[in-house]
Amino acid sequence: MTGSSFGTLFRVATFGESHGPAIGVVIDGCPADFTLDIEHINRELERRRPGQSPLVTQRKESDEFELLSGIFEGKTTGAPLAFLIRNQDVRSKDYESIRDLFRPGHADFTYYAKYGHRDYRGGGRSSARETASRVIAGAVAKQLLAAAGISFLGGVVQIGAVCAGSYQWDQVEQNELRCVDPQKVDAMRGEIEAARKLRDSVGGIVEVQAHGVMPGLGEPVFARLDALIGGAMFSIPAVKGVEIGAGFSSAAMHGSAMHDEMFTDGFHTNNHGGVLGGLSSGAPIVVRAVVKPTASIAREQRTLNRDLAAAGIETKGRHDPCVAIRAVPVCEAMLALVLIDVLLQHQAALGMRGFYSSPQSIQYGMAKDLTDGC
Amino acid sequence: MTGSSFGTLFRVATFGESHGPAIGVVIDGCPADFTLDIEHINRELERRRPGQSPLVTQRKESDEFELLSGIFEGKTTGAPLAFLIRNQDVRSKDYESIRDLFRPGHADFTYYAKYGHRDYRGGGRSSARETASRVIAGAVAKQLLAAAGISFLGGVVQIGAVCAGSYQWDQVEQNELRCVDPQKVDAMRGEIEAARKLRDSVGGIVEVQAHGVMPGLGEPVFARLDALIGGAMFSIPAVKGVEIGAGFSSAAMHGSAMHDEMFTDGFHTNNHGGVLGGLSSGAPIVVRAVVKPTASIAREQRTLNRDLAAAGIETKGRHDPCVAIRAVPVCEAMLALVLIDVLLQHQAALGMRGFYSSPQSIQYGMAKDLTDGC
Amino acid sequence: MTGSSFGTLFRVATFGESHGPAIGVVIDGCPADFTLDIEHINRELERRRPGQSPLVTQRKESDEFELLSGIFEGKTTGAPLAFLIRNQDVRSKDYESIRDLFRPGHADFTYYAKYGHRDYRGGGRSSARETASRVIAGAVAKQLLAAAGISFLGGVVQIGAVCAGSYQWDQVEQNELRCVDPQKVDAMRGEIEAARKLRDSVGGIVEVQAHGVMPGLGEPVFARLDALIGGAMFSIPAVKGVEIGAGFSSAAMHGSAMHDEMFTDGFHTNNHGGVLGGLSSGAPIVVRAVVKPTASIAREQRTLNRDLAAAGIETKGRHDPCVAIRAVPVCEAMLALVLIDVLLQHQAALGMRGFYSSPQSIQYGMAKDLTDGC
Amino acid sequence: MTGSSFGTLFRVATFGESHGPAIGVVIDGCPADFTLDIEHINRELERRRPGQSPLVTQRKESDEFELLSGIFEGKTTGAPLAFLIRNQDVRSKDYESIRDLFRPGHADFTYYAKYGHRDYRGGGRSSARETASRVIAGAVAKQLLAAAGISFLGGVVQIGAVCAGSYQWDQVEQNELRCVDPQKVDAMRGEIEAARKLRDSVGGIVEVQAHGVMPGLGEPVFARLDALIGGAMFSIPAVKGVEIGAGFSSAAMHGSAMHDEMFTDGFHTNNHGGVLGGLSSGAPIVVRAVVKPTASIAREQRTLNRDLAAAGIETKGRHDPCVAIRAVPVCEAMLALVLIDVLLQHQAALGMRGFYSSPQSIQYGMAKDLTDGC
Repeated sequence: MTGSSFGTLFRVATFGESHGPAIGVVIDGCPADFTLDIEHINRELERRRPGQSPLVTQRKESDEFELLSGIFEGKTTGAPLAFLIRNQDVRSKDYESIRDLFRPGHADFTYYAKYGHRDYRGGGRSSARETASRVIAGAVAKQLLAAAGISFLGGVVQIGAVCAGSYQWDQVEQNELRCVDPQKVDAMRGEIEAARKLRDSVGGIVEVQAHGVMPGLGEPVFARLDALIGGAMFSIPAVKGVEIGAGFSSAAMHGSAMHDEMFTDGFHTNNHGGVLGGLSSGAPIVVRAVVKPTASIAREQRTLNRDLAAAGIETKGRHDPCVAIRAVPVCEAMLALVLIDVLLQHQAALGMRGFYSSPQSIQYGMAKDLTDGC
Repeated sequence: MTGSSFGTLFRVATFGESHGPAIGVVIDGCPADFTLDIEHINRELERRRPGQSPLVTQRKESDEFELLSGIFEGKTTGAPLAFLIRNQDVRSKDYESIRDLFRPGHADFTYYAKYGHRDYRGGGRSSARETASRVIAGAVAKQLLAAAGISFLGGVVQIGAVCAGSYQWDQVEQNELRCVDPQKVDAMRGEIEAARKLRDSVGGIVEVQAHGVMPGLGEPVFARLDALIGGAMFSIPAVKGVEIGAGFSSAAMHGSAMHDEMFTDGFHTNNHGGVLGGLSSGAPIVVRAVVKPTASIAREQRTLNRDLAAAGIETKGRHDPCVAIRAVPVCEAMLALVLIDVLLQHQAALGMRGFYSSPQSIQYGMAKDLTDGC
Repeated sequence: MTGSSFGTLFRVATFGESHGPAIGVVIDGCPADFTLDIEHINRELERRRPGQSPLVTQRKESDEFELLSGIFEGKTTGAPLAFLIRNQDVRSKDYESIRDLFRPGHADFTYYAKYGHRDYRGGGRSSARETASRVIAGAVAKQLLAAAGISFLGGVVQIGAVCAGSYQWDQVEQNELRCVDPQKVDAMRGEIEAARKLRDSVGGIVEVQAHGVMPGLGEPVFARLDALIGGAMFSIPAVKGVEIGAGFSSAAMHGSAMHDEMFTDGFHTNNHGGVLGGLSSGAPIVVRAVVKPTASIAREQRTLNRDLAAAGIETKGRHDPCVAIRAVPVCEAMLALVLIDVLLQHQAALGMRGFYSSPQSIQYGMAKDLTDGC
Repeated sequence: MTGSSFGTLFRVATFGESHGPAIGVVIDGCPADFTLDIEHINRELERRRPGQSPLVTQRKESDEFELLSGIFEGKTTGAPLAFLIRNQDVRSKDYESIRDLFRPGHADFTYYAKYGHRDYRGGGRSSARETASRVIAGAVAKQLLAAAGISFLGGVVQIGAVCAGSYQWDQVEQNELRCVDPQKVDAMRGEIEAARKLRDSVGGIVEVQAHGVMPGLGEPVFARLDALIGGAMFSIPAVKGVEIGAGFSSAAMHGSAMHDEMFTDGFHTNNHGGVLGGLSSGAPIVVRAVVKPTASIAREQRTLNRDLAAAGIETKGRHDPCVAIRAVPVCEAMLALVLIDVLLQHQAALGMRGFYSSPQSIQYGMAKDLTDGC
């Protein structure tokens, strides 16, 4: 019944539909006395915003937010932070034609099956517009994590059949595809253009990393750090697969090649992707998520109407041909939301242990920063 | 702090270390008046048990459990079901040599970093022995789900570089690798033998499916069915990647190929793997998890001791060369635990809606059962 | 860290401070396809609103809300319902004088001790204004519960030293004190006037009842229905005690007098207050909560400033001399929020049991409706 | 569905029925590296054990526990602590006669209504035997809290019509009634004997206190410290009312008398009972819970059988005539479980704030220790 909140100690709850009056997010558990950087939140939102380049949807979404609570004289009070974004540029009429139709690849049929009554306009609650709320919450988390020395990277590593060959993280925000490999930007753009010409869409793979994560975060068994990260990434619309470190390629590896040896200056390899035994190892956390081709395509497809009778459909409206590009800041946000929560839990244990012993913080990580290919 | 429990309405909590007195599991929320099939639970445990074939560890683990509560006259009472398994064949001395060493690929270092004090014997809490508790809980869930028409399949689809080419689910339990493709059994066995000769280990990929799942299970946004499944699979030791339906291959697909059209007789394809918009679609749920090569290998590796000084290590003890085989029932169990929980939540909503309307259950699914390759 | 949400399946999260831009509430888990009665929500809010009579604060609070999400064509969609109330008539300057002072009986000191940084204006997050959000959520819950045959009563049964002698529930909303005993209205008003003349405040006791609750709601042990109700009532500002049924008077009773016998036409007495063994019995649920005298009084009191140095304080502003009156709808709301949650959980179990047996719903209750004294 | 677990970061789950093979408790979230005092746990259990004096039940319960996990070389590892107590002296035949009858004041009817199928032997899951598990968990919590300077008091302050007049906490464990007032022991004993002669039972009131609690624990709104404490106390079988500080007597008080002024040497009064605005104030936390007369009495009462037909019943077996005495350690345990959880949450926030500011811990409390009457 209740899937719209996330986290245990840093608890994020989003609300709102694509074509309703507003969307928003409430963060309960933000530590007090923290000076919030509103401009940073805006910059993060800007990265997710539609209309940034010809390669993404030209829909204009105002992502201007209002901060309604939890802040006083520029600093957090420990009370819930509530952010509100009004919806604008809502062309609900575009969706009249799909009122009774289930678009393939969309949530239309499953929401109808679940709820009996649905807001079909623009995907309603299932719209990716909801992810703006996550980016806001993720930005708050990132600011707190930055205070603890944790930083994030995110970029596109594959579009269509084109994979990044090298990683140049400082180039990611310099190209409109957020591609980590500047030499593959043209080829990836070609994949998108080819799909668009066919009135089709194409998939991609996003990689995000967190650096500076201290060893020992996460909780064993069901709340393993990789379980939390995996769940968080799969909660992003269109994600159909997630891998950490060597991921699926570890199937074909031998243990002696896979298992990263430990050296006094740190790990020399990071096949484990920063998570060992379900806990952070000190090495960068490396996660990849595959984003399926955009569900909305302008080609005719066969489907059913709500009487389960056969029908044809062409999805109109303004859609990203490759939604992976705009998924990058969302993946970063979800990773940040996981990490702030486990870091808070870690602090709880450390603080309590301080009453009866002297817990020491172990510093360990990569010998040098990782660059990797897909 | 608390990662050892799972689920909202069907809540499973495991406890116990590999070399402590016992392991066990408590299930809170099992519906009452259900006749529990104890033999079925034993059969499921048997599938996970070590020592079944020359390809898995020869360690003898007694998996005989005692049911301590929650049952009366053969039927559940609604009170917590507590299962206890005593540990036996515990050769703790095998582990004396690693008391102060961090085995590469293991949880040794990260547990030490987190807790300061650890039970190093046999991996302690991080041991895969904990998964016996999950199989028990999963068996209870499967029995309840069977009453609702939901059934499970699970098998190995890749070991080392060898992929299954065809799917013959009825052959899975006929071969010691639990391989879905009988024609690939020899090649896969070759991969394992080759690793073993090198005193090494090798990875693999497990696929599990749930059939008969009604449309509409799962909750939007953070508790999407794929998010719950993804998190559940990543909570299994050694899993480094998870994909649903077409998974990572969707990166290179066009939307028109990816998005399964709907027909009056059902879906003809299942690239979405039974989950659309975060909710079940009625098509079989199809999940693959990659299991990294066993962390314990008998080859010497470089590592550190607890003073972070350089050391060498060879892991002794009796270990599976390819842990993917025994991961199959564990993956099924985790999928079952996810599904019973969302099914219960679905019933809550349906029951409540029954007070003011007449919610109809929509039947939909695959036109015919799927067989698929990796 | 996160105390602003309530409930498991019907999850309510409130936000907002007394003198910030807005307060609000997000309800996650409201069943779909329900026609929401907006006017009913307004009427419930009206009952809590300040300024209704000379006996309550003359502060004008606009409680006009905006419903931002979760509704489409007048019916719930299953998505979170978000309600927003803008703050108006905010005289923050009234509070400049207490910026550095801790008002006795208030949350000033404890919030400062906890957070280091606080919004002192009007109590900020600790203000009773937050309870408007609860009344909204409670109204939604009441509407759903009404569909299941559950209704609510609430009134004042004691103010100062004056106790109600008889219960006439139909008179409650006819007098400005919401007193259940019309013959005690004048005496109770006298208590309030006497306190007011002394620039002081006075306490009171509120009783709320739920009728039509089917037997078996609640969960054993820690989520006993009385535990949930007790916790919910104590979460209301100023509540210092809660009792169910005979409550504290049961200390002096013998078991033979206390324990309500069962008859074929129902219970003839309700000392158990509708909860037996932690589960609803079918009899009306009867709860009383004591509301301490309003913390804000205009008499000088000794206190400390934030340097923990001695200071004197007179609390200005417009305050209720007896906050129990306006607590009535809040107590009802909290009881409704508990009941909708346990009813949903009950439906989950019933629905699941329907797959393998035929669970019957047992009808039982009071032989006739209860009237009782304090 | 799931009411058998308690707490967020220090999570306690109990299992087991009165006449099943065993009861037990799993604690997930106990901080690591803590030297557990097993003897202290035994002493706490001893305080709850039946058969200590002629005034309590002569049933012999072995409360010898086995610690199954979470400990290594005498110290906690951070993994779940699982405790097991085997049931003995089980005279299930005593209960054959009530197989189909609902005992007044018991959970028989409500469990039947909820579950359809119940373990009627000795109350099954609803038996107070379950509270032994809570005492174990509470003892672990108390040990951790002691390291943080927090200690507990508990005693009986009323039995039948006899109230304690003065408080002498050092005398509590010196008398078999655990009465805080040695001069009232005989009178209270008289109340019990009088009830017993009538084959009846009598109620009582327990008071528990926590000293040394630092200001600022608890979370605003729904997780107010008083809400958590109130819910915890109401979760104890037979508790029908809870009050904090002045409690119900605050109804008749004026604010100027109720609200404790602050002085540089601390509070001089503690009407607020250590909780202000939902957070701890530094003053002792003072809670009273009323325990209804024991439900099992040997007098004939009218009731129904499971066909809802009229029947008579006399409850046989060995029962406490006044269960308040043995409730004392259970009330302490529940208070400890609340406090360890909020203390852990407080540490999380403090630790996180340490990354960006220097949170100071404010010391404040009572000028001198409180002694109070009922």
